[in-house]
Amino acid sequence: MPFDFVIHNGTIVTVNSDFEIIENGIICIKKGKIARVEKVADDTPPPEAKEFIDACGGIIMPGLVNTHTHLPMTLFRGLADDLPLDTWLNETIFPAESTHINSESVRWGTLLACAEMIISGTTTCCDGYFLENDVALAVNDFGMRAVLGQGVIDYPAPGVPDPAENVATAKAYVEKWKKVSTHIVPSIFCHTPYTCSQKTLTEAKSVSQELGVLFQIHVAETKAERDQFLCEHKMTPIKYLDKLGVLDENTLLVHCIWLNEADMEIIAARKSNISHNPESNMKLASGISPLSRLVNYGIAIGLGTDGCASNNNLDLFQEMDMAAKLHKASTLDPTVMDAATVLKMATIDAARAIGLDDAIGSLETGKQADIVIVDTNKPHLVPIYHPESHIVYAAKGSDVSDVMVAGNILVRDGKLLAIDLDEIIDRVNEIASNIQGPAK
Amino acid sequence: MPFDFVIHNGTIVTVNSDFEIIENGIICIKKGKIARVEKVADDTPPPEAKEFIDACGGIIMPGLVNTHTHLPMTLFRGLADDLPLDTWLNETIFPAESTHINSESVRWGTLLACAEMIISGTTTCCDGYFLENDVALAVNDFGMRAVLGQGVIDYPAPGVPDPAENVATAKAYVEKWKKVSTHIVPSIFCHTPYTCSQKTLTEAKSVSQELGVLFQIHVAETKAERDQFLCEHKMTPIKYLDKLGVLDENTLLVHCIWLNEADMEIIAARKSNISHNPESNMKLASGISPLSRLVNYGIAIGLGTDGCASNNNLDLFQEMDMAAKLHKASTLDPTVMDAATVLKMATIDAARAIGLDDAIGSLETGKQADIVIVDTNKPHLVPIYHPESHIVYAAKGSDVSDVMVAGNILVRDGKLLAIDLDEIIDRVNEIASNIQGPAK
Repeated sequence: MPFDFVIHNGTIVTVNSDFEIIENGIICIKKGKIARVEKVADDTPPPEAKEFIDACGGIIMPGLVNTHTHLPMTLFRGLADDLPLDTWLNETIFPAESTHINSESVRWGTLLACAEMIISGTTTCCDGYFLENDVALAVNDFGMRAVLGQGVIDYPAPGVPDPAENVATAKAYVEKWKKVSTHIVPSIFCHTPYTCSQKTLTEAKSVSQELGVLFQIHVAETKAERDQFLCEHKMTPIKYLDKLGVLDENTLLVHCIWLNEADMEIIAARKSNISHNPESNMKLASGISPLSRLVNYGIAIGLGTDGCASNNNLDLFQEMDMAAKLHKASTLDPTVMDAATVLKMATIDAARAIGLDDAIGSLETGKQADIVIVDTNKPHLVPIYHPESHIVYAAKGSDVSDVMVAGNILVRDGKLLAIDLDEIIDRVNEIASNIQGPAK
Repeated sequence: MPFDFVIHNGTIVTVNSDFEIIENGIICIKKGKIARVEKVADDTPPPEAKEFIDACGGIIMPGLVNTHTHLPMTLFRGLADDLPLDTWLNETIFPAESTHINSESVRWGTLLACAEMIISGTTTCCDGYFLENDVALAVNDFGMRAVLGQGVIDYPAPGVPDPAENVATAKAYVEKWKKVSTHIVPSIFCHTPYTCSQKTLTEAKSVSQELGVLFQIHVAETKAERDQFLCEHKMTPIKYLDKLGVLDENTLLVHCIWLNEADMEIIAARKSNISHNPESNMKLASGISPLSRLVNYGIAIGLGTDGCASNNNLDLFQEMDMAAKLHKASTLDPTVMDAATVLKMATIDAARAIGLDDAIGSLETGKQADIVIVDTNKPHLVPIYHPESHIVYAAKGSDVSDVMVAGNILVRDGKLLAIDLDEIIDRVNEIASNIQGPAK
């Protein structure tokens, strides 16, 4: 029986445990999974396939994994920049959300985010938002892979007007989506340790454990948050979460900028995971995470873009470049965050951080066929000495030519297949025409 | 008489002194210069033109100005990363240069750099290298605009085996190129204050003054350099250069990371200019420039990518994003380096820093028609609230659709015109096949 697809004529960056790079390799795909990854042997005929995909000498790599998004926030891309955090949140983002976020706008904002991500080589994202059921419907229709967390907060939120219902709403959402789709993995996203009470946090974690899903939370993002916890609780936000028992290997801690050494030891001991969002942290002036020290603790760290309102795009190639460079500058050590380490944070380590490393994150036999081809026949990608260097330091999302999720081709020659991009853009522009930023 | 071109159906980001943004504007071009920049008036017929260029609703902006490059170093893109500076320089870059840099390789490396820059919206660069005559020949053939500095160093260098001839060689180069081309402006580039003697520095500056050209120098790039000057000369590198009399309004100081307040005052008082290269400074872990304080001194600051061996691309859109975000993170102030400030550093302020602001850097009547159109009909550029925000925070060089230098169209629909890109790529790959990086 022939394979469904054979991808050939490219350099395979496997991101397997040996970080193997296979020049002139082939990948055979059957029933949505990777059946073979190997070097072309000159003396054997190519395997039979229903369809051959020519990588044209480019780089074949795992689909990228974005560990932190708020997908519908594409609607607010560039609405307000360069403002103090409280002005930005309280005078722009929160009012825009309360007025313009509904099932319909969430759907179109999410579809736009999916289009942007898949075209730029991201095949999986880990999201948190309110109205996450609408996010899930859109992502499922689109055909991407995602861990999608229903937001929990002790304030009225879109879709959850009564905060007393926040955990119950999240529970019902998770129970529904555990049965619906193989691509969509439900999750619970508590907003922060200061916008959720102890009761909310412990109940949400308890439901997450009962249902076996990822518990996500923004934490230690700003100095103000850290200082508030030190003042009110006489402990850091991480220590506080640990005391409540919400840190375990199924917890994703987003941001983790303002950590002390004891915090890092706690995160490592609990085997919790971190989503690192350098561009958002920089743009909001939240600070610089002690990432190279966290790496030394062996903590699973995945890169994330955060929402489009604080980045302002979802390009994980650019995020890799930023992560690699930022920590060299902040530590004055050019050897930290080398290209291979950073690429793992956007693939296999990201998959591990969100609990999907058995299925995705590297190109290995038996894994899902989530595969990206990078077109290297461009001035800024010539010459090539080390493919992983180009992925991190020279390439951009726009260099992606082909993208496959579970063996389904979603992007070919840089164009979205089977998706009406013009309709998505038109609908988002229509919604945006009613949204106004702060007076200039 | 009709105009040569009329560009229409776009939002013009003029970057003029009022930072005027014109929705539905037109630009009329005649004999390589901008003849009119205005809003379309509904009640008057469009002006007559030999050719209309439809911006398709995109952004029309000045060509970007890259204030620091080493063009031929595209040959070493990604050859070695993530290494300590001395290992990188002494074990990889210097040996590669001494073995592989010659007239032929410089030509092809430079043409590749020009292709990369022009396709990504950079119409002018300011370069420094050895064999700069070969760089100039290639840039001139290509049709870009550039300030090109012959390198001066007190060691044997490609094309200048006897260091005693370094200033004389630079002088002869400048005298030749002052007569050859309107696009190429010659300059002198002293390598650093520690690789050029006092005699070399003062003679090179004296020749620069005599011939009226820009004097460039790398300075205050590393902590080691600063510490060496404090130890040997009991003063900072900037103070040292000032004592030698090389700082004036025709001086471009590249990097300027390790400055104290007195250094900033000197630079401002001398009206010297700065090239800021955040990506290179980060990748080499040189440090973080006190940029937002330099801005407050009113110093002309232009962005630069540096050479491809330490970036690893020449995309000024990405450099803008990095500059905007890095200084927010390092100062913990999200209001510094706002989008408009950063865009100016890649256009009009960059032009001022290299002495070309009368001719380029903004879209204004009488200036050279160096113009870029950004295609905004892409998922990551939707919706648009503020065009300058998208230019800095969301767009990439790959979003550029059309580029004109002095009224000559060099890029149309993202494709290079009249340049055989395949030949450039083939020749560079051939040269690179003989270059080897350090063992892994």
